[in-house]
Amino acid sequence: MLDRLYIRRKVEEFLAEDIGHQDLTTDNLDTDRHITAEITVKEDGILCGIDIASVVMEVVDPGLTFRRIKGDGQKVKSGDIVGTITGSGKSILKGERVMLNLLQRMSGISTNTAKFVEKIRETPAKILDTRKTTPGLRAFEKYAVSVGGGKNHRFALFDMVMIKDNHIALAGGIKEAVQQIKEKVSPFTRIEVEVSDLEQFSQALELDVDIIMLDNFTVEMVREAVKINKNRKMLEVSGNLNLENIREYALTGVDFISSGALIHSARWLDISLKFK
Amino acid sequence: MLDRLYIRRKVEEFLAEDIGHQDLTTDNLDTDRHITAEITVKEDGILCGIDIASVVMEVVDPGLTFRRIKGDGQKVKSGDIVGTITGSGKSILKGERVMLNLLQRMSGISTNTAKFVEKIRETPAKILDTRKTTPGLRAFEKYAVSVGGGKNHRFALFDMVMIKDNHIALAGGIKEAVQQIKEKVSPFTRIEVEVSDLEQFSQALELDVDIIMLDNFTVEMVREAVKINKNRKMLEVSGNLNLENIREYALTGVDFISSGALIHSARWLDISLKFK
Amino acid sequence: MLDRLYIRRKVEEFLAEDIGHQDLTTDNLDTDRHITAEITVKEDGILCGIDIASVVMEVVDPGLTFRRIKGDGQKVKSGDIVGTITGSGKSILKGERVMLNLLQRMSGISTNTAKFVEKIRETPAKILDTRKTTPGLRAFEKYAVSVGGGKNHRFALFDMVMIKDNHIALAGGIKEAVQQIKEKVSPFTRIEVEVSDLEQFSQALELDVDIIMLDNFTVEMVREAVKINKNRKMLEVSGNLNLENIREYALTGVDFISSGALIHSARWLDISLKFK
Amino acid sequence: MLDRLYIRRKVEEFLAEDIGHQDLTTDNLDTDRHITAEITVKEDGILCGIDIASVVMEVVDPGLTFRRIKGDGQKVKSGDIVGTITGSGKSILKGERVMLNLLQRMSGISTNTAKFVEKIRETPAKILDTRKTTPGLRAFEKYAVSVGGGKNHRFALFDMVMIKDNHIALAGGIKEAVQQIKEKVSPFTRIEVEVSDLEQFSQALELDVDIIMLDNFTVEMVREAVKINKNRKMLEVSGNLNLENIREYALTGVDFISSGALIHSARWLDISLKFK
Amino acid sequence: MLDRLYIRRKVEEFLAEDIGHQDLTTDNLDTDRHITAEITVKEDGILCGIDIASVVMEVVDPGLTFRRIKGDGQKVKSGDIVGTITGSGKSILKGERVMLNLLQRMSGISTNTAKFVEKIRETPAKILDTRKTTPGLRAFEKYAVSVGGGKNHRFALFDMVMIKDNHIALAGGIKEAVQQIKEKVSPFTRIEVEVSDLEQFSQALELDVDIIMLDNFTVEMVREAVKINKNRKMLEVSGNLNLENIREYALTGVDFISSGALIHSARWLDISLKFK
Amino acid sequence: MLDRLYIRRKVEEFLAEDIGHQDLTTDNLDTDRHITAEITVKEDGILCGIDIASVVMEVVDPGLTFRRIKGDGQKVKSGDIVGTITGSGKSILKGERVMLNLLQRMSGISTNTAKFVEKIRETPAKILDTRKTTPGLRAFEKYAVSVGGGKNHRFALFDMVMIKDNHIALAGGIKEAVQQIKEKVSPFTRIEVEVSDLEQFSQALELDVDIIMLDNFTVEMVREAVKINKNRKMLEVSGNLNLENIREYALTGVDFISSGALIHSARWLDISLKFK
Repeated sequence: MLDRLYIRRKVEEFLAEDIGHQDLTTDNLDTDRHITAEITVKEDGILCGIDIASVVMEVVDPGLTFRRIKGDGQKVKSGDIVGTITGSGKSILKGERVMLNLLQRMSGISTNTAKFVEKIRETPAKILDTRKTTPGLRAFEKYAVSVGGGKNHRFALFDMVMIKDNHIALAGGIKEAVQQIKEKVSPFTRIEVEVSDLEQFSQALELDVDIIMLDNFTVEMVREAVKINKNRKMLEVSGNLNLENIREYALTGVDFISSGALIHSARWLDISLKFK
Repeated sequence: MLDRLYIRRKVEEFLAEDIGHQDLTTDNLDTDRHITAEITVKEDGILCGIDIASVVMEVVDPGLTFRRIKGDGQKVKSGDIVGTITGSGKSILKGERVMLNLLQRMSGISTNTAKFVEKIRETPAKILDTRKTTPGLRAFEKYAVSVGGGKNHRFALFDMVMIKDNHIALAGGIKEAVQQIKEKVSPFTRIEVEVSDLEQFSQALELDVDIIMLDNFTVEMVREAVKINKNRKMLEVSGNLNLENIREYALTGVDFISSGALIHSARWLDISLKFK
Repeated sequence: MLDRLYIRRKVEEFLAEDIGHQDLTTDNLDTDRHITAEITVKEDGILCGIDIASVVMEVVDPGLTFRRIKGDGQKVKSGDIVGTITGSGKSILKGERVMLNLLQRMSGISTNTAKFVEKIRETPAKILDTRKTTPGLRAFEKYAVSVGGGKNHRFALFDMVMIKDNHIALAGGIKEAVQQIKEKVSPFTRIEVEVSDLEQFSQALELDVDIIMLDNFTVEMVREAVKINKNRKMLEVSGNLNLENIREYALTGVDFISSGALIHSARWLDISLKFK
Repeated sequence: MLDRLYIRRKVEEFLAEDIGHQDLTTDNLDTDRHITAEITVKEDGILCGIDIASVVMEVVDPGLTFRRIKGDGQKVKSGDIVGTITGSGKSILKGERVMLNLLQRMSGISTNTAKFVEKIRETPAKILDTRKTTPGLRAFEKYAVSVGGGKNHRFALFDMVMIKDNHIALAGGIKEAVQQIKEKVSPFTRIEVEVSDLEQFSQALELDVDIIMLDNFTVEMVREAVKINKNRKMLEVSGNLNLENIREYALTGVDFISSGALIHSARWLDISLKFK
Repeated sequence: MLDRLYIRRKVEEFLAEDIGHQDLTTDNLDTDRHITAEITVKEDGILCGIDIASVVMEVVDPGLTFRRIKGDGQKVKSGDIVGTITGSGKSILKGERVMLNLLQRMSGISTNTAKFVEKIRETPAKILDTRKTTPGLRAFEKYAVSVGGGKNHRFALFDMVMIKDNHIALAGGIKEAVQQIKEKVSPFTRIEVEVSDLEQFSQALELDVDIIMLDNFTVEMVREAVKINKNRKMLEVSGNLNLENIREYALTGVDFISSGALIHSARWLDISLKFK
Repeated sequence: MLDRLYIRRKVEEFLAEDIGHQDLTTDNLDTDRHITAEITVKEDGILCGIDIASVVMEVVDPGLTFRRIKGDGQKVKSGDIVGTITGSGKSILKGERVMLNLLQRMSGISTNTAKFVEKIRETPAKILDTRKTTPGLRAFEKYAVSVGGGKNHRFALFDMVMIKDNHIALAGGIKEAVQQIKEKVSPFTRIEVEVSDLEQFSQALELDVDIIMLDNFTVEMVREAVKINKNRKMLEVSGNLNLENIREYALTGVDFISSGALIHSARWLDISLKFK
């Protein structure tokens, strides 16, 4: 689960974006009522963000009561009530959209991820996300991937080294790049290097790196790489992977398959809020 | 176009999310090179965010030169180079992902919007977005809708009044809700009221509101509403609209059709950066 | 009423300005006492900001109890106690000045606005504020205008279009300016255009705008404009309006009279805090 | 002069309040022009804020050229051009209102202060401001007082000790309050104590404080206090001082006269921007 | 004591630095327990920061109970339990490091300061800190000096004037510098001037300043300066003072001895947290 | 090197702490001069922070020219000039203290670290820092450790898993803790587990962890652990390590020795700024 203080800071920013100085509609209503609202899923999928939804309501009004009915990662069906909110109707209306936008986006990603995970079930491979995330929302989106059964790749540029073709070009060679960086980073920092063909792959195998990314390799090439590797390095396949072709790649024996599509091609799950 | 200072503030926040205190890879390379990188579109669509991409690079390193080749709103084809960046290779690598994440997300929305717009071409209706946007990214996503030929509905809770069923419940009636709010907001503030059937629609027609939202109306009901309305109020259809059914709705003579799908169902457009 | 989260953010910033890292006086007192303090008005006027005052005390110390005796918009007389605060004397002393500075400024504006409103009573005109507000305090000042019986013009550059002479110059004509902007903004965005004489007024009448601002028109000119207009557009008079001349303008039949003086010429209302 | 980085931080916040994500009018104009605009004073007074105005324009657009014609503290007459701005017309329009709001408010305070200063010319007294300032704008307003010839009292709760009646009540006596605080603050921190009659004044004279504030003393009482004091402490008169009665107080030989009216009763000076 | 809101703002920033979006260890544990943890001192010294430690835990989780056993400024011995925290074990683990880092750093400074204070006991001199503090932590470090029995010099550039040799060079003379500044700052602002020899000291004695800093004076020179001064100005010695030589300086009759070493040469006090 | 945007954000915050709204001394001087100032080291050591010093001056005034003479990591001797700044004397004076506070603190840490590194030269062990850093300054302090030849342990709670005794207690066993966490974190996230005796060490050897921390082990116990380990896991010794005993530990064949003392026991290096 994400850190509570982190969630609060982001939720405050999201509410400020939507409310500004005044909710012209709700803040100008004279009367309020104590009500109960139900969060209802309108489409089958995997729920994600229910505890974050609860923080949205707590930030809007600490007087609201949020009851969680389903938890993150649970399968939900159209019609399921996954949580209820009780208290000031005006407060609930003010937080509704931000809460739903998060819940729908996150549940959409978990649901989408689960499809990829299902595709490679009973293969040795695991599906990974990437840094192709919506700016400002990465922690939420990566959390949704893990809730959907996927695995997270590095979070950002600050928690792992990934040496790509352009880094190699700047350093003047793959070996030089690894050495320069290795000398400065923590001995515990994971280092991954990207290779574009089997020759470069063989070079990379001799270097002090943890993971090798096989970029745009065909299934054949991946199979060959797995054979050469003999479990020395962790191997990741990347590039143009989708629901159609991942199983074939997963059966090669590769360790990881990464795909930005888990996040950037996810549609929102349909979820709505109804006053009882 | 969005305000330059606003874009800078958001871009600084996005870069902080991705870089933190250090890009472990790039900041630990000893050598740098002066290079030119090309932003290449790998899929047909509508370009959006090229000037924002330029701000990303300017924030990362004011010494970089950004050359714009295509502008926002232009049709692009797979293979088109839409801009180039020249300068420190290390700086370009640090900003690459945030720049592409924005460009791809925004171009994806513009491209998706254009499909809806095309569907209702030569009808009197215009397509509108909603507040179903990614938290923290609303201005960028709404801008992308307008670049794709769609129209923006209200930006947030602070720039227009929208009275929904729940507001009506709190106020004790549609008329009461309108009166309470009307008395406090600016005389220039637009007021929209949501109705769920033709009876409520007739009531709304008599009130001092600008727009009436026909929520989940069938095509038949919309046609009837248009007839009764006689151009007194602006009419907006909302609820479960998609590429399949919008044309039918658009032909009823309704003014606006709004759909969250312009934004929340858009896939990213494939765009990449290549060092020359 | 302004949004609670917005008020809290601003109040935290205001308290930081006044307290910094330490209130050298209060934070260095060894002893504290549980006291009740009374907010006393020392001058007749219209009260504004009492709920905001309560937020100031809540931010300073959630343990304080704030009792509201009079509400925003009520007429108050010298000597009236409008609220009480009970709890730690040290906490009350730390928040006192920021609370009073807001209450006095806001009540001063409401009181001043009420004088303008009274002047044009039983005329068809309404008095509007402008964007001539104290930087950083706009929401509070505009709220005070509405509490005093005035109406709010647009809040900022982001919620309405106002085309002034200089915009027209940049666009190369009034018609060009309207067209360029109209094409990009939301169909619900209000558009106002400023005209400086009757000829320009006639031009503006033919354009797709909602409001026409008659800038520095004489009473005669306004009367003429009202006649020509035949209720097609909303008309606003602006420029050098004050308590002496607004009634004359209001009697022309114009819809709105705007004046920065509601805010920028308001004196603070005398209000103080006394420990019982 | 205020610190440049401080001014920039505040100006960025003020511009964000006014522009938000987009200036709907200016940001949607297709064409721009290189123009020169003149800042013209339309009323006699003391200019204040011209360098701050220049920072506003620099933040909006670093490409603008600001030429200062008159400096802070100079007397200006209706019609005087005090500065010019050259560059993108669109940029100038976006910063215009924030720039003028600061210039007008600050020049209004300097002009108002100068009247108080003139009243007590050739007396031994100096006029001081107070902490009755607009929340968020204190540094700007206090700077305007000094530009108008007044003197600044403490900036905030963090740079001087001021022991008021309520502090004395919490500490259980004036001597106790002084001792508790004195022991903890810097030996260089100024300590002022407020007294409400001559008896308390005599007590305060024996304490280790720098300044004694004579709160709501009559002219007679002040004269008596000055006599008793024999220049041992700095004396400040406060409470209900205005242009009518300050000279009488100033002639008693008191050192300082403080008045919130310098700031809170100042009207804005009329200043406008014209495109040439 | 520092202001509660200030402490909270800083603590939130410190926790964000350490936790980011997630404590990978604690936030991924499935189970939690209600525990009591003891803050134990493992080295003799002066305690400082216990109330700030309590704020850290309150920010991490408002549900935790913090019991203070020893107060700031008390002597503590190895083995002393100075406070306990009861509640969610996971919450306590998340705040532990930031809490201890503050407590250890602050207690280290108080303990170090107490040694300097002891050295000059029964002399007329007082020990002062300087602006040589850890960036971002000044208020905490200066508070620790005062808790250890030292006195605070000015807090920052904004609460006192200190004219150094380089300022004198820019102004063109010591007298010019004092005059220029004196004219603009508050009459209550303390002014200190730095002198480098007895000749400059004599010059400074004639100026309207409060404190003279004898920079890098020998004991002899200080003794001479004290004699010449005849208590007209406050005198401060500065430059290369340490535990070995301060007593000798203190016996000269000088008022203040300032040393950055109170803060920048302090080691952390060993303090740890144990689950019971 | 740290990220440039990160450094700027922190430097802006540090300057705000020291300058606030005004440098009372420098901002009130009428005259300025173009000068050159030299950064002079007054004590032998390892330089760290010279590029960060340059950012301080750039933020204060983009018009200043900073010339770097020595680079981070170079040995410096008392008297060495390591950089010069040329431009407005007033600007240099405003940034001087923040710049020196960073340079002195960082160079002090690099110098201290170098002593530890020297002690274990030609042993297989590497010295690591910890999370015992000054709140708010971690990135700067850890960077200084690496410049001094030490290695960085994890940066924060968000980039590596460290399972301590208390986590094990919450999870109900060492195996349970590892399993729960392993399932949720990235497959690339390093996992370290702390053990307090050889029995627990043997248990840990069988788990899926990368590093085992031998907490408060004697030299004998470490030697035994190294033997049992047979290079299966990385081993880290921690607890009460200092310059006196680390070499003995280093000779056991352990991989890493971590010590908070690198940072929290470092004194500042004496560095000053002189106007030429």
